[in-house]
Order: sequence, then structure tokens, then C-alpha cells
Amino acid sequence: MSRRRLLLGGGATLAGGSLAGAAATLALSEPGPDTASVVTAEAKGAQVVPFYGNHQAGIATGAQAHARFLALDLKPGADRSHVQRLLRLLTDDAAKLTAGRAPLAGNDPEIPALPSRLTVTFGFGPGLFDAIGRGDHCPDVIRNLPAFATDRLEDRWSGGDVLLQVCSDDAVPLSYALRRLVRDSRDLASVRWCQTGFNPARDSEPAGTTPRNLMGQRDGTANPASDTEDFGATVWSDEPGWLRGGSMLVFRRIRMDVDTWDDLGRPAKEMATARKLSDGSPVTGGAEKDDPDTAAVDGQGFPVVAAEAHVVRATARTPTERMLRRGFSYDDGPDPDGKPDCGLLFAAYQKDAVASFVPVQKRLAESDAMNTWTTHVGSAAFAVPPGCTEGEYIGEALVG
Amino acid sequence: MSRRRLLLGGGATLAGGSLAGAAATLALSEPGPDTASVVTAEAKGAQVVPFYGNHQAGIATGAQAHARFLALDLKPGADRSHVQRLLRLLTDDAAKLTAGRAPLAGNDPEIPALPSRLTVTFGFGPGLFDAIGRGDHCPDVIRNLPAFATDRLEDRWSGGDVLLQVCSDDAVPLSYALRRLVRDSRDLASVRWCQTGFNPARDSEPAGTTPRNLMGQRDGTANPASDTEDFGATVWSDEPGWLRGGSMLVFRRIRMDVDTWDDLGRPAKEMATARKLSDGSPVTGGAEKDDPDTAAVDGQGFPVVAAEAHVVRATARTPTERMLRRGFSYDDGPDPDGKPDCGLLFAAYQKDAVASFVPVQKRLAESDAMNTWTTHVGSAAFAVPPGCTEGEYIGEALVG
Ligand code: HEM
Ligand code: HEM
Repeated sequence: MSRRRLLLGGGATLAGGSLAGAAATLALSEPGPDTASVVTAEAKGAQVVPFYGNHQAGIATGAQAHARFLALDLKPGADRSHVQRLLRLLTDDAAKLTAGRAPLAGNDPEIPALPSRLTVTFGFGPGLFDAIGRGDHCPDVIRNLPAFATDRLEDRWSGGDVLLQVCSDDAVPLSYALRRLVRDSRDLASVRWCQTGFNPARDSEPAGTTPRNLMGQRDGTANPASDTEDFGATVWSDEPGWLRGGSMLVFRRIRMDVDTWDDLGRPAKEMATARKLSDGSPVTGGAEKDDPDTAAVDGQGFPVVAAEAHVVRATARTPTERMLRRGFSYDDGPDPDGKPDCGLLFAAYQKDAVASFVPVQKRLAESDAMNTWTTHVGSAAFAVPPGCTEGEYIGEALVG
Repeated sequence: MSRRRLLLGGGATLAGGSLAGAAATLALSEPGPDTASVVTAEAKGAQVVPFYGNHQAGIATGAQAHARFLALDLKPGADRSHVQRLLRLLTDDAAKLTAGRAPLAGNDPEIPALPSRLTVTFGFGPGLFDAIGRGDHCPDVIRNLPAFATDRLEDRWSGGDVLLQVCSDDAVPLSYALRRLVRDSRDLASVRWCQTGFNPARDSEPAGTTPRNLMGQRDGTANPASDTEDFGATVWSDEPGWLRGGSMLVFRRIRMDVDTWDDLGRPAKEMATARKLSDGSPVTGGAEKDDPDTAAVDGQGFPVVAAEAHVVRATARTPTERMLRRGFSYDDGPDPDGKPDCGLLFAAYQKDAVASFVPVQKRLAESDAMNTWTTHVGSAAFAVPPGCTEGEYIGEALVG
């Protein structure tokens, strides 16, 4: 107990102390916190992803360890000026928070000082276009994403006027950023849903390793690398108009039946995707980045790769079918009876969802070995505006 | 598209492929996964906390980045033999999973191979003692934790026959471990509640830095260091009997009103605990590990440290009042109206809660500046058995 003040402690000697008085004293003696002093430059937490740029952050950014997808609905009667105000405020918050600074009116630099690659990415649902009187600017696929045969969608995980995708390698600055963003949207919008996801922790595996999902698979192998021309051609809209440099996000909450999956033999698991669990390489051999050899046959002349294998069905059959999958696992279970409630927050970015998500998901709904263990229970689609420069706000080219 | 098999893809050439046939082929050609091959020794994820020992892991273990506290209720009619079976099975699962191996009947070594300091810690509530016919062995404070004036407890976050505290620096192996443990308990127990918590991510700050909670405070400063004699004297039971080498856990779900907290001036925030937000040092000066100087006065002769400051009220006034606080933040918000739902999963370990948590919390309920922003909404107390050796199961000295 050497360091504890056993004899000094207790209220008796301090009866005259008051919070207000003491606070006043401190206010004089301490000029206020200095952000620089609380950041340890070498700490991983100090890593920052630039907010301003041609494209929004959080898309080409390698998927962080944590994400929260927040869908807001504009309050009834919201018009263009309200939406302007909301986006201006949230853009300012996002720019500050992702740079490691406290948001407007925030006086706690400590939590935001360690953003751990915090990103905030905005998406617009049909309701936003309608509110600003530009319903015709909403891409049809965002308003009317088709239904698929295997859909089992629930309203509580679907739709939304504004999406905020908030990601960080650290759940603490993520929680803080989200609470500030929500607070600054509260006058103008209500929370439709908020879904929490995760990937393997920072540095659990060497940087650049493809993350594993809750089925144990390496998930993201076939994604275009962010530094390639392929990436831009896949993800960024090049249509003239307000969406140029932006993207489209299709978000699906996909439940996994891990009970039956866990019991399945490894060969059957691997055949469901045509990739090995160990390292994500094709079941027909080769390295992770190779494609399965769909022509390979076994000793009896049977194809080694099943026609209904997920990768065979999902792979792009035209260049325009490509997409960037930037998903996160979720686990909101167990239920009271001990049943798991987990799966994948599937988030696909692409220049035009009509050309990529829609045909691919149509094919998967028709036949995909993985459908035995996966069920789509939520769905939302958003137009993702391009990035902005300092002084602008996200969506300004549309909202004006 | 160079690497995509645009021409080879499609179902037509593969019409004969079947999952079963292909799986059989693979089963022959691939002898099964080798755990060693999937672990990258240098990766942080490979870090292991030993399961067997005099004490259970997950107490002296530095708090991990993620935790799930799971309370189980034994099914009606469960008796000693059922409890034996449950604990034997869960001990075996925990030993394997924390060592980085798949649990019984698990055929996926990949996720558990990177446990990231996974720990599983067992606690026993009154219902377990009653089920095995040893109700008299349950410490009275575990059965009858007193009510406190400021309690606003809800059943849905309180009580439980068996607690599993599952922690890891990585949410993926944590999710997997929990789903396997729950599954293996499903015949004999139902899920009463499951609460998810987090601390700053691994390496966001240098190792050994005191974690910040969602009020931005460094929380845990005054804890005994795990390698000291103080630690053992604080945490481990030395009473003769089955609990020797074990501990007692008081778990409280404490909601924070972060809306009003965020708006409060920094000096007032700092006076609420008598510690600075920047580095956790006393408002009266010194280093983080120093105690506030409760005798200090300002220019007008007023005490600098308020009598109702949290640390003044909470600090041990006798050596037996000490405890180890091993808490995690939670964030289950926002509500539909945008209100936060976050706070602290307070978890205090101590040799005897009658002597430590109870008097300290009684004092805090009477007066604590922090009570303005914190509300206890859940409560549960557990006897925490000592550790075990290989071949034994956790709680064997009690359950027999
Ligand atoms: C829970 C649901 C799903 C799981 C667990 C899952 C898992 C996987 C895995 C393990 C791979 C192989 C590695 C990789 O390239 O990432 C893969 C590939 C792929 N998946 Fe999925 N997937 C799911 C749903 C979807 C959905 C809904 C779509 C789109 C509609 C989709 C589109 C793709 C594409 C395009 C590929 C790459 C195929 C290639 O070109 O090789 N996936 N998925
Ligand atoms: C949300 C609720 C709470 C918050 C945010 C909180 C926060 C803090 C902070 C910031 C400190 C100073 C740094 C440190 O030593 O850790 C502290 C100290 C302490 N707290 Fe709490 N606390 C909470 C609830 C409680 C409860 C319920 C108890 C026990 C009944 C407790 C017991 C203590 C003790 C024993 C200390 C160390 C005092 C000393 O010896 O210096 N706290 N707490």
C-alpha cells in the first residue's frame, strides 16, 4: 500500500472542496490541452488516412479491423437547405476526426488523437435525392435494386437516406467518431440502423494478408489491388456528372449458418468456393492469387472444380462485372437459446451496380454452393459521391 | 482482366462436377490441415496466454482489446453430473482454443491458430452451487450482493449461473471461441446475457500504457501491477478451501451519459476524478502513478481536490479494500433517436468482495462526482475458481 494515501484519503480534510471552485483554479493554471502532446508519433494509433482528395477515403483504403455502417433517415420535411447543413457539418466532423483532431465543439483531443486509420465514407440513398428535389439524379439501381430469389430481407437491416461507413483499426476512436457524427445529425436525421463489423486485428497477420471471415476463408483474394489501373476502372464512376470520381455501394447483411458449416468436412468446405481454407489458393493448386483451373479433372475424369462453386459463379464474365468487396464480419449473437447470429457485412463498391453487383448476385441466387450456409437478411444501396477539397463538403456537386 | 478466367468460367464445361465427387477426390489428395503451417510465428496473432496454472488466465493477463462476457443459466433439473460434464467440456475447449488449436470436433485450425492472447475465464454464480447441492459453499456476497442507492439495474444485464469471460486482442478468434463454447454448452445451459466490450487496439499506444475509456480518461492507473506481491494479496483468495487461488468477480454494466460529459469543460471533467485527461496524472501535479495531493490548496486557500472526486472516494482506506479493475468499454448505440448507449463493463477482481467492492461502491453511491454521468444498469457477481492442471477441469475442487 506504499503508494496509496491511506492516511490522507477521506472526505474530512476536504470538506470545503467544490468542483466548481477547483475547476476555476485549474482553468487559470492550465491553458488547455495541446493535441501534439498526447500523440505518440511511433504508436500505431497515430496512423492517419487523408480525408480530402478526388475520391472519398474508406474505399481504396485497405479494410480496417473495425467498421460501423450507420444508415440515417432524413426527418420528414427536410429540404435542400437542411441536407446542405447536415452534409457541411458532417464533412467538417469527418475531416477533423480522421485527421486526429476533436470535432467542432469537442474539447477532448485525447481519443481522436489516435485515429488508427479512421475513415468516414458517405453514401446517398434515394430519400436524399428526393429531399433535395433531384430525384431524377438518383441512379435507378440505387432506388430499385432488384429482388433476388434467395433474399430473406428484413426492414430493420435495410434501406436508408444517408450512409456513414466509419472504419478504424481501433474500436475506441471509432466509437467516439460515431457518437459525434450521430450527435451532429440528430436535429436533421434519425438512426435507421447501425451495424457493427470487424476484420482480423491490425498486425495479427503480416500487412497485406487477405483477411479471414467467420467461415475461416480468406475473403478478398480476387479484389483489384488499390494501386492498379484495374482498381480505378472497377470502382470509380467515369460518367460525366456529379457522381464522377464517386462509386456505388451495395451493402448486404448476410447471415452465416456456422453451426452446420462448422460440422462440414474440410474438402466439402473447400469445394464450396473452389479455394483452400489454409491459404486461399485454388483447390486445383497454385498460389492464392491464381484462379482455380475449371478444366482440371480427377483420376476418374470428373471435374475437380464444381460448377456451383462460389468463385466459379461469382467471377466476372465481362470486365464490367468486376467489383471491390470490402466486407466485415458481424457477430451479434448468441441468441438466448445459444444459436449464433453472425455473418458478413458485405460491402461492394463498383462504378455501376447495374453492370456488376446485379448480374453477379443474380447468378449466385440461381446457383451457388455457398447458398446452403448463407442468407441475405439486409440490403441497402447508395450512390457514393466523389471526394472533396478543404472548404467543400461531400456531395456538393449534387446538392449545390 | 488478364488474371480472370473470362473464357474458362461458366457452368457449361463443368456440368458433370458435383461437390460430393470433388470433395472425395480432395479428401484423398489432401491429408488434412496442419496447424503449424497456418501460423506465422512472427505475427502478433500467434501470441498465446497459458491456460493451465495455479490461477485462471484472463485476470493477471493485461486487459486485451476485446472481451465478451457471457452469462449462462443451467437448464432446469441440471445436477452435479450435468455441471461436471459442462465444465469438463468447456475446460477442454478453453484449453485448446487459447493454445491456438481447434476445439473438440472442430476441423478448422485457421481461425484458432491466431488466438491473439485469447483467454477464457470461468466464474460461478449462486445457481451453480445450488445445482450441485453445495449451496452453502457459495460465498454470501456472491449470492447477496447488496443493493446500492444509485443502482438502476435491469434483469437483462444481471445475474447468471456460470460466467465465461472471453478476451482476445482480435475480434475474429474471440467470435469463433465464443461460438464454440456456447455450442458445447447448449444442451445444458441457456444464454442469459452476452455483453461485448473493447479497449484501445493492440499497439495503438506503446505496450503498458493505461487504456482510455469512453470518457477519454486513463482508466486503471491505480491497479496493482500483475508482477507484484500486492497483486496476489489483492486478487487471489487465500482462504483454505476450494476457492484458494481463485478470486471474486463483481461485474457491473455502467452506462455513461456521454452527451452531457462531452459538453462539460475540461477542468470540471478533470476535477470529477482528480486526474488529468491528458496523461492521467493528478490535478495537483506529478506523474500518472502518483496520488492526488488532497491537502493542496489554491491561492484563495480552497482545496484543489474536491472531496467528492472519484479517486478520493474510491481509493482504498484499508489494505483489504483494494481491487483489480479490468474493465472494457461498450457501445451498443445509437438508439433510433440518435442517443448513445455506451459505457463501461466494469469488472473488478478481488479476494473477497465483502471487503473491497462492497464498501467502496457503498461510498461511491453516497457521493462521487462521477455519479452525474454514470448509472449502474447491470450487476452480477461470481466466485472465480482457481486454475487447473492438464487433465483437471476448472472448478473440480468444488464440483468434485
Ligand atoms: C457470406 C457471403 C459470402 C462469403 C462468405 C463469400 C466468400 C468468398 C470467398 C471465400 C471468395 C474467394 C476469395 C476471394 O476472391 O475473395 C469469394 C470470392 C468472390 N465473391 Fe464471395 N462471398 C460471399 C458473398 C458474395 C456475394 C453476395 C457476392 C456478390 C454478389 C460475392 C462476390 C464474389 C466475387 C466477385 C468473388 C471473386 C470471384 C473471382 O473472380 O475469383 N460474394 N467470396
Ligand atoms: C463508468 C464508471 C467508472 C469510471 C468511468 C471510472 C473511472 C475511473 C478513473 C478515470 C480512475 C482514475 C484512474 C485509475 O486509477 O484507474 C478511477 C479510479 C478508481 N476507480 Fe473508478 N470508474 C468508474 C466506476 C468505478 C466503480 C464502480 C468502482 C468500484 C466500486 C471504481 C473504483 C475505482 C478505484 C478503486 C479507483 C482507484 C482509486 C485510487 O486508489 O487511486 N470505479 N476510476
